[in-house]
Amino acid sequence: MATVVMKFGGTSVANIERIQNVARHVKREVDAGNKVAVVVSAMAGVTNQLVGWVKEASPLYDMREYDAVVGTGEQVTAGLLAIVLQSMGYRARSWSGWQVPIKTNSAHGSARIADVPGGDIRKRIEGGEIAVVTGFQGIEPKDNRISTLGRGGSDTSAVAIAIGLEADICDIYTDVDGVYTTDPRIVPKARRLAKISYEEMLEMASLGSKVLQTRSVELAMVYKIKTRVLSSFVAPEAMKPFRIDDIENIGTIVCDEEEIVEQQIVSGIAYAKDEAKVTLLKVDDKPGVAARIFGPLSDASINVDMIVQNVTPDGKHTDMTFTVHTGELARALDVLKKAKVDIGHFDVKSSADVVKVSVIGVGMRSHAGVAARMFKTLSEKGINIHAISTSEIKISVLIDAAYAELAVRALHTAYGLDSD
Amino acid sequence: MATVVMKFGGTSVANIERIQNVARHVKREVDAGNKVAVVVSAMAGVTNQLVGWVKEASPLYDMREYDAVVGTGEQVTAGLLAIVLQSMGYRARSWSGWQVPIKTNSAHGSARIADVPGGDIRKRIEGGEIAVVTGFQGIEPKDNRISTLGRGGSDTSAVAIAIGLEADICDIYTDVDGVYTTDPRIVPKARRLAKISYEEMLEMASLGSKVLQTRSVELAMVYKIKTRVLSSFVAPEAMKPFRIDDIENIGTIVCDEEEIVEQQIVSGIAYAKDEAKVTLLKVDDKPGVAARIFGPLSDASINVDMIVQNVTPDGKHTDMTFTVHTGELARALDVLKKAKVDIGHFDVKSSADVVKVSVIGVGMRSHAGVAARMFKTLSEKGINIHAISTSEIKISVLIDAAYAELAVRALHTAYGLDSD
Repeated sequence: MATVVMKFGGTSVANIERIQNVARHVKREVDAGNKVAVVVSAMAGVTNQLVGWVKEASPLYDMREYDAVVGTGEQVTAGLLAIVLQSMGYRARSWSGWQVPIKTNSAHGSARIADVPGGDIRKRIEGGEIAVVTGFQGIEPKDNRISTLGRGGSDTSAVAIAIGLEADICDIYTDVDGVYTTDPRIVPKARRLAKISYEEMLEMASLGSKVLQTRSVELAMVYKIKTRVLSSFVAPEAMKPFRIDDIENIGTIVCDEEEIVEQQIVSGIAYAKDEAKVTLLKVDDKPGVAARIFGPLSDASINVDMIVQNVTPDGKHTDMTFTVHTGELARALDVLKKAKVDIGHFDVKSSADVVKVSVIGVGMRSHAGVAARMFKTLSEKGINIHAISTSEIKISVLIDAAYAELAVRALHTAYGLDSD
Repeated sequence: MATVVMKFGGTSVANIERIQNVARHVKREVDAGNKVAVVVSAMAGVTNQLVGWVKEASPLYDMREYDAVVGTGEQVTAGLLAIVLQSMGYRARSWSGWQVPIKTNSAHGSARIADVPGGDIRKRIEGGEIAVVTGFQGIEPKDNRISTLGRGGSDTSAVAIAIGLEADICDIYTDVDGVYTTDPRIVPKARRLAKISYEEMLEMASLGSKVLQTRSVELAMVYKIKTRVLSSFVAPEAMKPFRIDDIENIGTIVCDEEEIVEQQIVSGIAYAKDEAKVTLLKVDDKPGVAARIFGPLSDASINVDMIVQNVTPDGKHTDMTFTVHTGELARALDVLKKAKVDIGHFDVKSSADVVKVSVIGVGMRSHAGVAARMFKTLSEKGINIHAISTSEIKISVLIDAAYAELAVRALHTAYGLDSD
């Protein structure tokens, strides 16, 4: 007997029929003797409707009120799923974030979970009741107001609840059947990974894979919560219930590196199309110039990703290239314009027509030549690299957007990831 | 400077434009220096959508989950109105029932308010912040779950909050501009009442007038909360802000009998079309027969209204006539069928083709001849009376539905209620 957290996103609960399908997934686990907490998102479309109303009310809205309005979507789904489960003969009740309570900090709209639940909800689950918990939302205890965790926050809710319940597994049901070596829409030979380490999943998530919210992976990693990515669209009865000693080989398990026996050197290729490149030409090469450039951007809450600095032939100037999110490009250029005198650069060039392609794998730590193979592969295809950034377990390059698919496919083959 | 509670129903907040209109009503009061709490219903249509989902999830639903789902509608409106008020430069925040808290009993779906708020919300209002409170919902403190007060419950929420804040007025904004002597759609000469006593309003509400929820009037009466019925569709700027010493002559003030100087003998004529008549023929006229008839009906939660008993010419039997809500007629007949042997009646007749017409006025207490005038008026028009029931301040008669309009018009004239 295990404690299982099951999370279902908006498309999995889009209408009553789909909620009934979710209930059958829950039934499978409960019938096998598992203790279950279900975490649900708002029905697909509902959150957009609520956000639309908020923006119509005022383009400049109070995030606390935004949270009060938008947080209702999950409450509706939780109540409906509890009703469906009851109609199937199960004991179930819905829990809002404030009832659990899922305590967060005061960063309304993108709050961070500060404390994970235990107490009453745990007792009830252990007594055989199914807890249906609202994802995405919590409570800011100081002011006693509803907070939300930001888009995709339900994944994080699920992991937090798994921590509070000391659950054996946190199953994230999505519209894909697992984590792939790369986007199968680009590379038909992409393979589903049976297992992936937290670190790799984290890089995947922050590098453009939409499967799991980055913060949920961080949290799972810190608290060692075994997380599984599954499809809610597989017939509930075609899947085996969770068993601690015999996890079925479906979906992808996100777990500790040590639990992955046959670790590949490279686990996946990610790409992100929402990067824009900014180049400052002929910046005076003096100490403190980086601070003068990135200080104002940081003050404007603009996140800078890759940074490359080259010295110009005259030795007195430097060209500084960096990337920002495409949605923030206009604002970034505006900030740089205002700071021009202070920075002392000759000109600014920018382009949103770039893509970041990344190779990810914990095996890189112990294997040389991973980067070299990447550069060689791209070079063979005639793809020019604008910028490079590396971490312990990933190498990212910025290239022209036109070469995105070609690069991903070539790298997928080069690292031996293609399925047979 | 006064403390004002303003309540707006679903049609008054049906979309953002109407919510902005509501905000202008609030602005008028705040600009005049009044302290304001606003109570809002769900946007028109939203509650029906939520109830529809609940019923689709299961025809037999848990009322606690129903409340969790349906209570979200008000939360959305409250957040949106707070945002609009903030965008106009006012300090405002939304409050859910559980945040105030509005404590209720455990009768989910039709909960009764057990405790009225004070504390934090009061301090904030006195500090100049506008409180936007969800109507219709509260919290059941034992299990810490959302409860709802039943359809129209927002009126009751408003009065309860007025009690908690010791407000000077509870303004109920609706789609009509006050309480009328009778339904203006039937009697074009109906007059708006400047004032009406709690007792009369209570009879009006329970006799078919949809202006205020019965329980809100009960609560206002017990705590002597001056309540005003106003139209939200009058231009906000065309109305004067509330002043304790100079209440403008708009809408209808529901207040203590003593505050009404020129009290009419009869204040209004109400009618209810949702009554059905049941007659049990030739019941054995023995002690305990009424208990044998009405006991089973009460056990089935069927509310019986008017009751008339006649003895048949033979002196051994009695005919028993009573009314039930039309929606419960089929169930009532079923109950009587099962209890036939026990009751010992010869036959049952029923008709939903009846209407109850009532004459209401506190002046009846001290004036004779009010009933006589009613019977005479109906007789002159050739209208047959099936049943009569009276209270201290009202007389109701049951007549054929076909005569409803004729009776209401004739009585309206007979009691001198027609406008000039």
